[in-house]
Amino acid sequence: MTNLASDSEDERRSTRKRRAILDAAATVFLRNGYRGTSMDEIAALAGVSKQTVYKHFADKERLFVEIVTGAVDEVSDPVHAEVLALADSGDVEADLRDLARRQLAAVMQPRLLQLRRLVIGEANRFPELGRTFYERGPGRTIAALADAFKRLAERGVLQLEDPSLAAAHFNWLIMSAPINRAMLLGRDEPLAGGDLEQYADGGVRAFMAAYRNP
Amino acid sequence: MTNLASDSEDERRSTRKRRAILDAAATVFLRNGYRGTSMDEIAALAGVSKQTVYKHFADKERLFVEIVTGAVDEVSDPVHAEVLALADSGDVEADLRDLARRQLAAVMQPRLLQLRRLVIGEANRFPELGRTFYERGPGRTIAALADAFKRLAERGVLQLEDPSLAAAHFNWLIMSAPINRAMLLGRDEPLAGGDLEQYADGGVRAFMAAYRNP
Repeated sequence: MTNLASDSEDERRSTRKRRAILDAAATVFLRNGYRGTSMDEIAALAGVSKQTVYKHFADKERLFVEIVTGAVDEVSDPVHAEVLALADSGDVEADLRDLARRQLAAVMQPRLLQLRRLVIGEANRFPELGRTFYERGPGRTIAALADAFKRLAERGVLQLEDPSLAAAHFNWLIMSAPINRAMLLGRDEPLAGGDLEQYADGGVRAFMAAYRNP
Repeated sequence: MTNLASDSEDERRSTRKRRAILDAAATVFLRNGYRGTSMDEIAALAGVSKQTVYKHFADKERLFVEIVTGAVDEVSDPVHAEVLALADSGDVEADLRDLARRQLAAVMQPRLLQLRRLVIGEANRFPELGRTFYERGPGRTIAALADAFKRLAERGVLQLEDPSLAAAHFNWLIMSAPINRAMLLGRDEPLAGGDLEQYADGGVRAFMAAYRNP
């Protein structure tokens, strides 16, 4: 019993340290950029030794991939569940509007925009960072949308030839304008209420006009 | 006469040097990133003195803004002329398809993708770089498209309430999927022939289905 208790105490301590390292690392990466960040600085901010950092994460790239994975999954997981439910929707336009608003609000969170910018800036030198972001983020959402749209076409609700292209159209009709403005203009702010609905509802309206089965 | 001739000789030399500095700077910026680039290195590669670099460009940011301006205008100028002509088009769908293909090919040039990535990576710290890229690139094209679409709606060819939103939809229906893949995946390659037409024609098809006056 004593051994088990102390094992689980060790585990809890290890989990706490891991969490502290990830939080510290996210702060330092976003402040100094990927190349400007050292494991020393992360260890100092997390209040652990450099050895402890390396015990949890093999190198800087693994640590950053972990941060990207966590941040993207946090947005992507709930969206994914909602997309899967679309296939059986009784009111596709209304459900797409709900989805679009929630997706846009999630994607436009300042920390995620900053991370996206950092990943893009390093995508040539560290392709794994960008691949992780793409595959777990837009890539995953678009693939799930494609499945749902295929099903909706089989049900006669939508009319389309290429479910993947339709899914990409939906995704980017909603998100491109605000994301590209944010990326290039360096404005990492959540959208103002009215803007969010304008982008989301306007994108859904265009999508339904293009793909509704007449 | 002698003075005039030597003035113009000086001018030609100055123009040549300016050109050499811009070419060298573009090479060094793309290789080392914005912060990793020094005026010394640019001067050395251009084969001029550092004083000469500063005679032409007040500082590193001005020099980079000049490079972005040149590269974006080279793509944006011909697109702009073509967009203005759309308002009087006799076959809007065919003309949009031509425009979309040319625009996509131009935007997906490796050097411009690299520059876009560099600008995004620095947009927080050096917002003027991103603003220049946005305003002379997508911002300008979308504004011109909005004017053309407004005119086409007045002519009864298109049906829309918000010309700016329709213009953003057109722009991003064509370009978002390939640009976002390239940005995140770090693949700075021109699109393969079939892909280019699929994105361009598919985007135009969706746009016309959404905005054609029935």
